[in-house]
Amino acid sequence: MFVELITTGSELLLGATLNSHQQWIGRRLAEIGLPVNRQLTVPDTGTAIADAVREALTRADLVITTGGLGPTSDDRTRDEIARLLNLSLTEDPEVLKQIELVFKRRNRPFPPNFETIARTQAQVPAGAIVLKNEHGSAPGLAIDVATENKTGRGRLLIVLPGPPRELHPMFLAYAIPLLKTRFPEVGTFSCLTFHTIGVGESRVEDAIRPHLVELESNGLEIGYCARVGEVDVRLTALGPKGEELVREASLRVRRLLGKFIYSESGQSLEEVIVHLLAELKQTLVTAESCTGGFVSHCLTNVPGASDVLLGGLVTYSNEFKRELLGVRDETLSAHGAVSEQTAREMAEGARTRYRADYAIAITGIAGPGGGSVEKPVGTVFIGVADANGVDVQRHQNAFDRETFKFITGRQSLEMLRRRLITAQREK
Amino acid sequence: MFVELITTGSELLLGATLNSHQQWIGRRLAEIGLPVNRQLTVPDTGTAIADAVREALTRADLVITTGGLGPTSDDRTRDEIARLLNLSLTEDPEVLKQIELVFKRRNRPFPPNFETIARTQAQVPAGAIVLKNEHGSAPGLAIDVATENKTGRGRLLIVLPGPPRELHPMFLAYAIPLLKTRFPEVGTFSCLTFHTIGVGESRVEDAIRPHLVELESNGLEIGYCARVGEVDVRLTALGPKGEELVREASLRVRRLLGKFIYSESGQSLEEVIVHLLAELKQTLVTAESCTGGFVSHCLTNVPGASDVLLGGLVTYSNEFKRELLGVRDETLSAHGAVSEQTAREMAEGARTRYRADYAIAITGIAGPGGGSVEKPVGTVFIGVADANGVDVQRHQNAFDRETFKFITGRQSLEMLRRRLITAQREK
Repeated sequence: MFVELITTGSELLLGATLNSHQQWIGRRLAEIGLPVNRQLTVPDTGTAIADAVREALTRADLVITTGGLGPTSDDRTRDEIARLLNLSLTEDPEVLKQIELVFKRRNRPFPPNFETIARTQAQVPAGAIVLKNEHGSAPGLAIDVATENKTGRGRLLIVLPGPPRELHPMFLAYAIPLLKTRFPEVGTFSCLTFHTIGVGESRVEDAIRPHLVELESNGLEIGYCARVGEVDVRLTALGPKGEELVREASLRVRRLLGKFIYSESGQSLEEVIVHLLAELKQTLVTAESCTGGFVSHCLTNVPGASDVLLGGLVTYSNEFKRELLGVRDETLSAHGAVSEQTAREMAEGARTRYRADYAIAITGIAGPGGGSVEKPVGTVFIGVADANGVDVQRHQNAFDRETFKFITGRQSLEMLRRRLITAQREK
Repeated sequence: MFVELITTGSELLLGATLNSHQQWIGRRLAEIGLPVNRQLTVPDTGTAIADAVREALTRADLVITTGGLGPTSDDRTRDEIARLLNLSLTEDPEVLKQIELVFKRRNRPFPPNFETIARTQAQVPAGAIVLKNEHGSAPGLAIDVATENKTGRGRLLIVLPGPPRELHPMFLAYAIPLLKTRFPEVGTFSCLTFHTIGVGESRVEDAIRPHLVELESNGLEIGYCARVGEVDVRLTALGPKGEELVREASLRVRRLLGKFIYSESGQSLEEVIVHLLAELKQTLVTAESCTGGFVSHCLTNVPGASDVLLGGLVTYSNEFKRELLGVRDETLSAHGAVSEQTAREMAEGARTRYRADYAIAITGIAGPGGGSVEKPVGTVFIGVADANGVDVQRHQNAFDRETFKFITGRQSLEMLRRRLITAQREK
């Protein structure tokens, strides 16, 4: 089984847009046992799309394209593919009706060129299955390509629109069920990913690899992926014995890496925390200076965050630190806004003033300006408060501004996670 | 000139990691006139890397790979490429010294297997130029591949490490200057991107395309990219006349799209706002309920935000809305927390209580829970306050939670931008 993903769009190659489809589709396909083997991006000009699809069809059982189905002149995927496969295009009345429906639901005036837009996008190649677009105008297409491969079965080409909010629901509702029917052998791919934080990539490998040697020789594959401040360990295996191999390996990894593992199978650190707080019926307040709301933003991405996060304070200025958190004037003048003492008073102030069980407080120098000899750019103090008191850690996160915010935010969440795990154990 | 980017890593194909290199490198190369023509992701297993590089070298003048230079067993790029090109690997004493230096600077104990890590990563293929890694252990490599192409010049292969904080500074300090020397014809690619907000993709095309017809027939290319709630218009042209073509087209686009354009050449909406506030010497406070700190997070990504953003309040609970913003009990009970009146009092309260010139206030239902018939999931009220009063807009942003936060946040920033532009004009 070979799966190839072709993302089209010059904006991807020029770096104007992030290729988020690669991640999103890759993850969904891996979940159903159809991991992507190759991903290609081509521009939406000339014959690049047709060339890429032609080449992919020579090796892949499943080819998926994204983008180029819109109403503008650089949207060429539908036409290029119809020409490549020598399929006539016909207006599909059902698709036309669906496009009208979507436009009506928006409660906005129809664009003056609505008819042209609709008629262009309602063109369907002969024999294609239409994948309904419930959030935009261009439908997706699934085309059986007669060229047989070594499995004795034709190849499947799935053509998807570019906008994520059209692609995502379409993929889940229509493409996934189609793939499961079409490739009944899926599911023989086993995969488990551990997310670890606070330990380096080679230390992770040294800790686990010697204990997995014989599983590797039986077909287990181990992948390491160093992300900013974190390392993922991915265990995969193919075939009917794969599940058992991954299960056995995961038992060992869990024992060897212990508390460094914050989640398995994709839960984010913030999801883990919101769920722990909910389980323990505890509440949280955040007090952020240099991270500027990043921590509360992460936490509020999790559905149900409103049950545990009472609120957050972004206290950039000293005045805000005093007024909203009760940090003392003497503390600010004796130790400065970026100090252990200030972090401590911020955390304690946030917790008691706003009647929360836990508080996170962060104060530091994100840069590029503002550093000094004693406190260079990247210096940060993170406080976590609960009923037992405040812990403060000092870190030196000398990165660009966005990475600084990211790493600092993750460190604060990890400090809180450790506290919550202790609380959970003591319960 | 053909440029191919090969990103390696099974984690990219499985969707465990976002392919941020594609965007970052794509943008840097476009800026120096070397737009990427093709991007490929291959797994870090087997001979996939060598196969991809071999194939790329048959068509590209410049091939760039990322990833697979680390110390773990799935890091195979260096070995695979040396084998493919038949180059011997030798330990480079300078590289070894640099690796030690980087480890020393970290102020942490050396890992027990340091010598193995260092010696593996100090292997350099014969004839390769070393690109110094100032933030990690594996150096980059630039290799002249003898195979000549139609320009009568060899092909260049650049091999880069995977971690962004190693790759980024290395690319800027060592790869870019090398590319400029090696490809002196660069710079004949002209490109300008307009970022627009508040108008759909086909309306944008209808507004500008009829006015650019003759420029298109002279070689101008127009690209449209619909992002969430926004549309980018990209004007590109090759060759010595390209600059003039893009300049002329940009004059027309600027006139035709006017206030819908929030920036040119890549400035983000939040950068535009921070710079406008700084120019006008005005301050801002944010009061966010359902966006949970996303708006203050965006703004604080911009260096210098601390000069204009006094702080932010994430007032998830009604108690926070009352205590921190002075929203009245009667307002909350008569109209609810998600209402025009509450948004108005939040904005006005934030502005006056915290003595800012401007305030943004957001209250809504992000979902998935919490909706009702009158106020379904996605309902949101955005208030922007200044000395002249408060404007409130109601929007219906019925998306998944993260998209809801994103779109709502952008709408609030756009409301503020319009106000700031008016203030700038009146000054």
